[in-house]
Amino acid sequence: MRNLKVMMAFRGTNYHGYQKQENALTVQEVVESAVSKILNIPTRIYGCSRTDTGVHAEQFCFSFNTEREIPVKNFVRGINGYLPDDISVLSCEEVPPDFHARYSCRGKTYLYKIHSSESKNPFMTDLALHYRRELNIPLIQEASKHFIGTHDFASFCSNCSEKQSTIRTIYDITIEKNESFVLMLVKGDGFLYNMVRILVGTLLDVSEGRIDVSKLDDILKARDRKCAGRTAPAHGLYLHEVFYDELSKEM
Amino acid sequence: MRNLKVMMAFRGTNYHGYQKQENALTVQEVVESAVSKILNIPTRIYGCSRTDTGVHAEQFCFSFNTEREIPVKNFVRGINGYLPDDISVLSCEEVPPDFHARYSCRGKTYLYKIHSSESKNPFMTDLALHYRRELNIPLIQEASKHFIGTHDFASFCSNCSEKQSTIRTIYDITIEKNESFVLMLVKGDGFLYNMVRILVGTLLDVSEGRIDVSKLDDILKARDRKCAGRTAPAHGLYLHEVFYDELSKEM
Repeated sequence: MRNLKVMMAFRGTNYHGYQKQENALTVQEVVESAVSKILNIPTRIYGCSRTDTGVHAEQFCFSFNTEREIPVKNFVRGINGYLPDDISVLSCEEVPPDFHARYSCRGKTYLYKIHSSESKNPFMTDLALHYRRELNIPLIQEASKHFIGTHDFASFCSNCSEKQSTIRTIYDITIEKNESFVLMLVKGDGFLYNMVRILVGTLLDVSEGRIDVSKLDDILKARDRKCAGRTAPAHGLYLHEVFYDELSKEM
Repeated sequence: MRNLKVMMAFRGTNYHGYQKQENALTVQEVVESAVSKILNIPTRIYGCSRTDTGVHAEQFCFSFNTEREIPVKNFVRGINGYLPDDISVLSCEEVPPDFHARYSCRGKTYLYKIHSSESKNPFMTDLALHYRRELNIPLIQEASKHFIGTHDFASFCSNCSEKQSTIRTIYDITIEKNESFVLMLVKGDGFLYNMVRILVGTLLDVSEGRIDVSKLDDILKARDRKCAGRTAPAHGLYLHEVFYDELSKEM
């Protein structure tokens, strides 16, 4: 039995997120169907993460087991022939049997893309948040430092249950301005439901003067979603990078 | 009577080009309708150029006359409220009465965008040519030099009539590689029908070894469309910049 690790990118606009569900089109359903066609046998794939409706991925990992001896290069070209234009397989490699796209994942970087301009960008409608006000980048940078480190992020989680751990580590947040685009990169060991979107929404509220930077530590301590800022829209969010131990690349 | 100069950007995917025509949706029709709504009177707009179906514009200029005293800033915000997501007005300024978006234009730069990669990019399906083969950038750069200067470009024109002048000046062609994207910028005083797409198609034929660089001067001399290379697809092409005399900005 071979274990294959696949990287793909997808535009989330037309999907109800990655994870398969009844009565809604999902990325997993479309990709599983393409994998099953290529391998000529129904095949279950394991994704690195759930994603919300409309969220994109520049790098999303899934893994699956197969008895088939298809060469990885042929798999990439073959499956892309079965996938729609908004999903693209980037690479495929054979990995040790214990590799699992979700459980072996050591961390992720999310990217939030903002088009900061009076006029919208006709090429980015569903690919960035169009934001008309002036962004206070130095203030956003200062505010973002409060989230770096290991914290209880219960205030930054939608519908979190009391039973699950809401402690996560954010390794870094970087804010870059590139012409009219502002790119926020959030790197962490794992993320709660809607966590990045609430972090970004809170930073926007800080920029707009609706939340004071001095209140951010209290918001973390409150462990109450109502204390944090708004949830930024899904269409600006990208899963940007997923990290695994290097050893999983060796056999 | 005021004369207004407007810059806009549009994604050409859903339009049969800029220029109005019967029985097909065009950018001009949509924009004229929005201008007429804002000004509350049927208004004719004059565009800087025709464009093919599927061709995009990062910067497209149109001008129009009006008796209305609407402030230019209100015009920009107002018209964007009436425009669909794939057309965006970027700026508006009052210009001297003799300014005309087409006749005052001193030159244009077109951009041709190629995504050079085995796997397609799900965010750029209709916004760049997906090209799987290796591109020979030094050879394309060498070949492009043959087109710079004033030449008879009859070989690089679709359906050119014998009556029109086919002499044009190309000021510069630059080829940039940016990660997996190759950007070809062609700056000239004017362009014949399909000229940039045939130039790019010919450069791709050179890269693939189907046309020898030493033949390019003969292809120009032949004044025969059949001698040049293929026509590159429309969806990689952008009107990138339009140039006007500076004086038109003063009143």
